[in-house]
Amino acid sequence: MPYRSIPRMVIKRLPLYLRILDNLIKRDVEIVSSRSLSEITGFSAEQIRKDFAYFGAFGTRGSGYNTEYLRERILTIIGLNRQTSVIIVGMGHLGTAISRYNIAKNPYINIVGLFDRDPQVIGQKIFDLEVKDAKQLKDFITEAKIKVAIVTVPAECAQEVVDELAEGGVTAILNMAPVRLQVPKGVHIHYADLTIEIHSLIYYSSETERDIEELEAL
Amino acid sequence: MPYRSIPRMVIKRLPLYLRILDNLIKRDVEIVSSRSLSEITGFSAEQIRKDFAYFGAFGTRGSGYNTEYLRERILTIIGLNRQTSVIIVGMGHLGTAISRYNIAKNPYINIVGLFDRDPQVIGQKIFDLEVKDAKQLKDFITEAKIKVAIVTVPAECAQEVVDELAEGGVTAILNMAPVRLQVPKGVHIHYADLTIEIHSLIYYSSETERDIEELEAL
Repeated sequence: MPYRSIPRMVIKRLPLYLRILDNLIKRDVEIVSSRSLSEITGFSAEQIRKDFAYFGAFGTRGSGYNTEYLRERILTIIGLNRQTSVIIVGMGHLGTAISRYNIAKNPYINIVGLFDRDPQVIGQKIFDLEVKDAKQLKDFITEAKIKVAIVTVPAECAQEVVDELAEGGVTAILNMAPVRLQVPKGVHIHYADLTIEIHSLIYYSSETERDIEELEAL
Repeated sequence: MPYRSIPRMVIKRLPLYLRILDNLIKRDVEIVSSRSLSEITGFSAEQIRKDFAYFGAFGTRGSGYNTEYLRERILTIIGLNRQTSVIIVGMGHLGTAISRYNIAKNPYINIVGLFDRDPQVIGQKIFDLEVKDAKQLKDFITEAKIKVAIVTVPAECAQEVVDELAEGGVTAILNMAPVRLQVPKGVHIHYADLTIEIHSLIYYSSETERDIEELEAL
């Protein structure tokens, strides 16, 4: 278990490094310095070197990191070195947006199931996947051994859906419903809550206003 | 400037407290203890008491916090005590999802402009708002003094859009395009990047697998 001691905050930065490396490799860049990575990410070069040292990737002084090697290490640590099967529960606007746009283009993820309980939505096709009846959810995840699910149902049904996912063996859930949920031990739940993001953003917009008022008062 | 010393991590938790308080007030709950809030949020009761103490909200020992008072304090700190005008640039699936679902129901935010550059999308109506031509973006934000924008354009156009927003006076941007961007000093940019969220989630799904393998090997 060499990776168990990587701090949560480092893990959160890995997917960003991965995206940057993917872009560099696409442009045939073989070596990248912590300084260039710092300019792209906004993290300090020191921070980046520390992050990489956690998984034994050490740059060569004055020349930098090998992009392919670094990507391989990160893929292995996250667990993206083989494609992960993911399902989406809730095919409203947000579920549809995610299945069509974000995920369809992702080389590391394979969307294998879409679920909804609305008879008008069940049976609709998104690319080559037909939206299934939410009643089939538990059987599907148990049989296909699904571990990762994205939940985009309304707040009032989210707990029920998450309970079912946990019972069916899902261990990692991205909840986009605007509600906090209970999960059993061993199940990780992440929240991607846009309203919360927007509200905290507004704090910063008015902070800037406060700064300006302060300056003008001088 | 009594709030300037509130740490960023506390600010990030405020919108979550706000949502919980909104729900409690809707159900006529007048008093809430840090312990109940701890059960709902998953944060420790001590953490919650510390967060609230930052803005001078002290509970009464053994009885708790007044929900209305606490909500008012939080609204004032975030700057949600008056409605904030927000625009969305990029009316693909994600922009449409946000404008229809997340925001339409939000009492603190007023979506006042939707923009896209696709002639097929320009002129479409979402509720009572017509999607405008992105060419009008800068004039619109300057005239309407817009400070907050959500960007859901493709990665390759995001920097250009963000530059225009900053030039037009926007100070807080939620970027949902899967790319890191440069903003001038005084402009805050937050990233709500679903791919990144999903990738870091996969780490935790395989962590659980690793735990199980470890247990089984004993």
